Amino acid sequence: MKVLIVGVGLIGGSFALVLRKHGIADEILGVEQSPCHAEQALQRGLVDRIVSLEEGMAVADLIVLAVPVDALPLLAVKVLNRVGDHQTVMDMGSIKEELCDAVSQHPRRARFVATHPMWGTEYSGPAAAREDAFAGRTAVILERERSAEDALEVVEGIYDRIGMQRIAMSSGEEHDLHAAYVSHISHITSFALALTVLEKEREEQHIFDLAGGGFESTVRLAKSSATTWTPIFLKNKYNVLDVLREHIHQLQILRKMIETDDVEGLNAAMHRANSIQRIID
Amino acid sequence: MKVLIVGVGLIGGSFALVLRKHGIADEILGVEQSPCHAEQALQRGLVDRIVSLEEGMAVADLIVLAVPVDALPLLAVKVLNRVGDHQTVMDMGSIKEELCDAVSQHPRRARFVATHPMWGTEYSGPAAAREDAFAGRTAVILERERSAEDALEVVEGIYDRIGMQRIAMSSGEEHDLHAAYVSHISHITSFALALTVLEKEREEQHIFDLAGGGFESTVRLAKSSATTWTPIFLKNKYNVLDVLREHIHQLQILRKMIETDDVEGLNAAMHRANSIQRIID
Repeated sequence: MKVLIVGVGLIGGSFALVLRKHGIADEILGVEQSPCHAEQALQRGLVDRIVSLEEGMAVADLIVLAVPVDALPLLAVKVLNRVGDHQTVMDMGSIKEELCDAVSQHPRRARFVATHPMWGTEYSGPAAAREDAFAGRTAVILERERSAEDALEVVEGIYDRIGMQRIAMSSGEEHDLHAAYVSHISHITSFALALTVLEKEREEQHIFDLAGGGFESTVRLAKSSATTWTPIFLKNKYNVLDVLREHIHQLQILRKMIETDDVEGLNAAMHRANSIQRIID
Repeated sequence: MKVLIVGVGLIGGSFALVLRKHGIADEILGVEQSPCHAEQALQRGLVDRIVSLEEGMAVADLIVLAVPVDALPLLAVKVLNRVGDHQTVMDMGSIKEELCDAVSQHPRRARFVATHPMWGTEYSGPAAAREDAFAGRTAVILERERSAEDALEVVEGIYDRIGMQRIAMSSGEEHDLHAAYVSHISHITSFALALTVLEKEREEQHIFDLAGGGFESTVRLAKSSATTWTPIFLKNKYNVLDVLREHIHQLQILRKMIETDDVEGLNAAMHRANSIQRIID
């Protein structure tokens, strides 16, 4: 299979490595705006050649859209405008409502499979691409009934072969609501925590020395890139604001309990929080 | 060396395992209030015998205080009241100001070494004790000048042998301020995040399915025990409230930026947050 990857960053680049590892792609072409990323992608052998979108679409069996979410909906429409009956288009974006809406009335909608493979790291760009990406994680497939059978077979077959569990979701709205809870709020919290510490703490050496108290795990995501996350927060604005409002509210309740030495309240809140084990264990 | 561990939970129990692994203790005795924990500690071979505090102090060379921080200051005084010239007392608590103050005027203060080995997990009790604990982490030694040379040699010698880096801090106040930033706030954030998700999210299955978006790492600490953390938050109340106030403020700034589509502000804030890499990498 000839694969064209549009956007050879952390996600697109990792997908290239994984496709190669599993012998799924004979040839991988890349479209990449950043000359620096293009160079790195070639050097690491993520793609065989960097091409224009038109050149790539002329030969690819599968076209993978892995650009930041603010560029994704319009790119999807442009690609569908040029797609042939034998070609499949998929995306890997972490926001789905706007994208699903953008392609919803397209006459070639059936060639497109909207997906979100739930994997990432706090690093970005092709230099951060990893061959062990995706395996063991969940891939969300959106609006399955809108995609052609053969296109679904291609995309779901790949996710199966690379070791992902698939789940179907019926709408982009539903996806984006869940993503706000399980991913976006964690990133905001981490960014805010990093800013808190950087703001207040002058003696950095001591922060470094004291690391080990749980700080690294909660603040790790604060290393994530603004290029990726600013568009995600803004594209998922209403869900994110809703969760953020609730999160600040929960922090204020805990603050009040600490202020008033409310031992019973704190114990009860933590016991309640402990039940998150059901979900993440 | 005969070692008495008072409080055979996650920390005391792990210390027992590590002391044994390194051949530092010939015999380890434990004082444990909870019959269930005492039973587990014996079953796992963490301690050779469960004894009363008096029995243990009659024979131990080293007395290790590993009880929750609300019980620690008074216990330290009681133990110093009975300590002999040949014995060393150390604690492993994560709050230091009140403890250091409690023992400050004690005629046998020099037999005591106040320490905080910066290690822990989100689990608690002797069942959670781990042989790979402490290694590679930092041990804070407080008020070194208040401890006798030979007592310091015992305690610092152990931390060196089990692979910890030592740093000295001159006061409990300084320690507690730093601990609020690098440990306590992370736990509060995690608890609040767990409560947020549990509060708002009804379809648990979807949270589970979507795991992988960064949620686990920020929420892991929410599995921590209230028995450990309620006293820590309350004993370090003023520092914790101060950091919490700043953290909520930072979240509110990010919220405002998202509300107003402030792309430049968000990018700038995230770039600033990214500089946390200097500290945690």
